Amino acid sequence: MCNRAEMSMEGYYTFGPHKIDAKDVFYTTQLSFAMVNLRPALPGHVLIIPKREVKRVADLTAEETCDLWLTAQKVGTQLESYHNASSLTFNIQDGPEAGQTVPHVHIHILPRKIGDFERNDDIYEAIDEKEKELKRKLDIEKERKDRSSEERIQEANAYRPLFL
Amino acid sequence: MCNRAEMSMEGYYTFGPHKIDAKDVFYTTQLSFAMVNLRPALPGHVLIIPKREVKRVADLTAEETCDLWLTAQKVGTQLESYHNASSLTFNIQDGPEAGQTVPHVHIHILPRKIGDFERNDDIYEAIDEKEKELKRKLDIEKERKDRSSEERIQEANAYRPLFL
Repeated sequence: MCNRAEMSMEGYYTFGPHKIDAKDVFYTTQLSFAMVNLRPALPGHVLIIPKREVKRVADLTAEETCDLWLTAQKVGTQLESYHNASSLTFNIQDGPEAGQTVPHVHIHILPRKIGDFERNDDIYEAIDEKEKELKRKLDIEKERKDRSSEERIQEANAYRPLFL
Repeated sequence: MCNRAEMSMEGYYTFGPHKIDAKDVFYTTQLSFAMVNLRPALPGHVLIIPKREVKRVADLTAEETCDLWLTAQKVGTQLESYHNASSLTFNIQDGPEAGQTVPHVHIHILPRKIGDFERNDDIYEAIDEKEKELKRKLDIEKERKDRSSEERIQEANAYRPLFL
């Protein structure tokens, strides 16, 4: 299935109450999409999202669960290599008490390297902060109807050929 | 398939170089098992592990990936309810630079409640600490051939009926 057929007629993907410009999306499957982050905590910090808007992991069908994690596995492997990293952090904040700000399931993937964070768990503080920033930024974009930044489009353009 | 048939002849599961007593395992599928934690960061902090010993998420077959995450979804949902929690943290430290101490893929699942950690990201510091403790404890058990503690067995016994 070609990407265009999977998007809405307006050329965007749904992420909770927000519209994600197709330019920020670098890989899609039948049920999931992968987008660059508005403000990555580390190079290659991306999000994997089910196309159907569901709040919680428990709401995903078996088919969506498999598709989502096969996508995460593929994207993680490619971006770890692309960024010359040696490990990956996979994280889901599943519900508000776990730090979720956008009520639509999303996997954080972060390529990791020796010494990228002084203390390993500082990465999660960064994820939490970025999760909050993500929501603020998406809220602002919703108001302003801002375009994606050039930098984000460049990043998505760089990743897209990895999955051809 | 009954549990007994899925274990080794000696009645344990493999977790990296360690042997996990079947008494610590409360749910199994064809390709995955769920175990209580040696030192949980929060009540209901458990691990989901593929039966085949693989170091990295990238090493999992598609069948293993699906089975692992369908198991995580099921276990997370049940334990969130059992512990009267309202969210879940799902985390994989995939490789040593991401904080992995036992070189065998494992998903951390933690039921979350309002105010369980003063700052949400402190949970990850706790996961990291518990991951290190897990390895130390497993290393010690390997030496001593210790039995599982009564408390762990009780916890596993409490969870097992949730999945009948």
